[in-house]
Amino acid sequence: MFFTHLECSRRCGAPLLDPRQRHHLCQCGAPLLARYDLDAARGWSRDSVKGRAPNMWRYRELMPLLPGEDPVTLGEGFTPLIHATRLGAKLGLDRLYVKDESLNPTNSFKARGQAAAITRARALGVTTVSVPSAGNAGNAMAAYAAKAGLTAKVFLPRDVKTPFIRECLLYGADVTLVDGVITDAARAASEAGASLGWYDVSTLKEPYRIEGKKTMAYELAEQMEWQWPDWIVYPTGGGTGMVGMWKAFDEIEHIGWVPRGRRPRMISVQATGCAPIVRAFEQGTEHAVPWENPATVADGLRVPRAIGDFLILRAVRESGGAAIAVEEEPILQAVEDAARDDGMLLCPEGGAVLAGWRQALDRGLVTRDERVVLFNCANGNKYPLVDRSRHLKLATASAATL
Amino acid sequence: MFFTHLECSRRCGAPLLDPRQRHHLCQCGAPLLARYDLDAARGWSRDSVKGRAPNMWRYRELMPLLPGEDPVTLGEGFTPLIHATRLGAKLGLDRLYVKDESLNPTNSFKARGQAAAITRARALGVTTVSVPSAGNAGNAMAAYAAKAGLTAKVFLPRDVKTPFIRECLLYGADVTLVDGVITDAARAASEAGASLGWYDVSTLKEPYRIEGKKTMAYELAEQMEWQWPDWIVYPTGGGTGMVGMWKAFDEIEHIGWVPRGRRPRMISVQATGCAPIVRAFEQGTEHAVPWENPATVADGLRVPRAIGDFLILRAVRESGGAAIAVEEEPILQAVEDAARDDGMLLCPEGGAVLAGWRQALDRGLVTRDERVVLFNCANGNKYPLVDRSRHLKLATASAATL
Repeated sequence: MFFTHLECSRRCGAPLLDPRQRHHLCQCGAPLLARYDLDAARGWSRDSVKGRAPNMWRYRELMPLLPGEDPVTLGEGFTPLIHATRLGAKLGLDRLYVKDESLNPTNSFKARGQAAAITRARALGVTTVSVPSAGNAGNAMAAYAAKAGLTAKVFLPRDVKTPFIRECLLYGADVTLVDGVITDAARAASEAGASLGWYDVSTLKEPYRIEGKKTMAYELAEQMEWQWPDWIVYPTGGGTGMVGMWKAFDEIEHIGWVPRGRRPRMISVQATGCAPIVRAFEQGTEHAVPWENPATVADGLRVPRAIGDFLILRAVRESGGAAIAVEEEPILQAVEDAARDDGMLLCPEGGAVLAGWRQALDRGLVTRDERVVLFNCANGNKYPLVDRSRHLKLATASAATL
Repeated sequence: MFFTHLECSRRCGAPLLDPRQRHHLCQCGAPLLARYDLDAARGWSRDSVKGRAPNMWRYRELMPLLPGEDPVTLGEGFTPLIHATRLGAKLGLDRLYVKDESLNPTNSFKARGQAAAITRARALGVTTVSVPSAGNAGNAMAAYAAKAGLTAKVFLPRDVKTPFIRECLLYGADVTLVDGVITDAARAASEAGASLGWYDVSTLKEPYRIEGKKTMAYELAEQMEWQWPDWIVYPTGGGTGMVGMWKAFDEIEHIGWVPRGRRPRMISVQATGCAPIVRAFEQGTEHAVPWENPATVADGLRVPRAIGDFLILRAVRESGGAAIAVEEEPILQAVEDAARDDGMLLCPEGGAVLAGWRQALDRGLVTRDERVVLFNCANGNKYPLVDRSRHLKLATASAATL
């Protein structure tokens, strides 16, 4: 257990913070990051995790746990890395992999962040947690809050798909529907909870979700036998996963589990209807200008402003990667293709990732002999509207009757 | 790799069969079982699986693979065993666990059986596979068929919930809706496919689904550090899981991974609206009389006649277990309770298991100090009708508006 303190992600000079107290953002407004005694952790062998239970807590020595604490867990993490043989063959690649995050509790990668956040919230003595969400984070938070016996308040955009609402309610969460998108939901959550002492687990305003998400990089390293892939293609909404994995690369290199030097190049994928990070990447700015009138079928990408924009952009640039925006039609097409070719039911954000990868190939950014990992962040089943437009027609057409 | 041949489950005296050819039922009409050279497998150490990828193929030496073959896999198996602390506390138990099979590809334990069946189908040179299903098996079969590049024909009861149809179609399967229940769908599949040479992967009419399902017992043994729980509570439709686990106990004892003697007692749970196995158990008969007018919200339990009825009953009886039928209301209540208390979204069949366990406690069949594993077989998200009756009201009631 090497967890020691919290530090400003900007290293603004503010004092290091004690994790035994509640913290959200640094006094300078930047996200806080969990820090560990990495020099001491050099003595921790990567072979020691080999026989542990296949969930994200197998890396618990570098997770935000203090001595004597146990995680709040539903078995999240260590999701399979699927060799997408048929999808790859059509693109002329034989080393295409999908990290299938839909095989997490509540069917999405949000389980990782919320398991870490709720673990710390419980340890801090919190009784009520709140979160704004496009859907999946709300489901995950509600489930872990139920598991921990905490009261959950979830704020969702009014046009969120029904399954997300229903699942929050089943876990016993209070749900508030808000006009607008996730940033509007965040404002509502913050206004409602400020005077009541609710513990806000918003993306990057809470320092531990990123620790849950970083485990995706630990797992990739372990699953690829301590070698990095050439490319990671990842959907970007709030950016926790991208920032978390970049942080994990630092940690993993520092403790010597993978040699320094050849990190994966990171491709951040957004939708053309909401692409603030892509625009900032192209314009070479450190921060992203908020996106006006965000609109995309991939709800999780409908994030007009990310508080950690500079961290996302830094990771993409330092990796030698790219930020790519994809249209709606290629997203839906990618969801269909992954299902038909390799039996995977991607969420629209996962479809965006595949579409983004195809665009990178078309643009000649990458070559076909490289080892590529696409992230599918959630299961497509909670997005009936996506296929209502396309697939129920299909149902009528091909469901014969005896 | 110790896979050798197929044998009649009744040991009727028919010759042993070569797995390099297609086989369905024994000439006597009983299901066939895959057999291994278990004496040779005694030299295989349980420690050798420890560092392997966390999916069901970690036990590949005792899986139906011939030399040089690789499985068709989407990462199925090695699902988490969740300590249901809050749910257990309410029942006065501190050793209540849920094996959460919803964290499989296509969200159900059917992935295990279909991964094994499609692996063998591909090895046999099959091009078209067919299956009758209540929903989850069809989704799983369609996904693995897509992954393997096979044509899939899925036969579903006409009243199946829409998400199951949609998901089959997304994987590119042909879907036929049939009036009636799964046995009617089976008849339709068989009539349609007989002259066309379709490879039928119906429950127990195909010998390898059981091999996929048996891995649940291998995993339980490994996850519980090679000690059996006192009780396994399991939903019974076609019975593959129950029969598969019982077969696995034999294998595991034979190769010495768990000492002979104290096997788990098996509780088979059905719904009062379709309880042929429970009735046969109570009446002490070897076979079950088909159930007339089967009806329950738990679609997977709506199986009026199971071809392996005698195998299911034998496992329950030899284990010193029981067969229990539960009403509809306790099923729905159990789904709600598991979500609110421990953050798990059970399918109705999983709800039936929890309800069955409560009934066993009430009837004094079991004591509160025992170690119990409940199986949740699938994710609740594909059953919107279940909560339409109860939870959308809840949604209206508690979704406040800003």
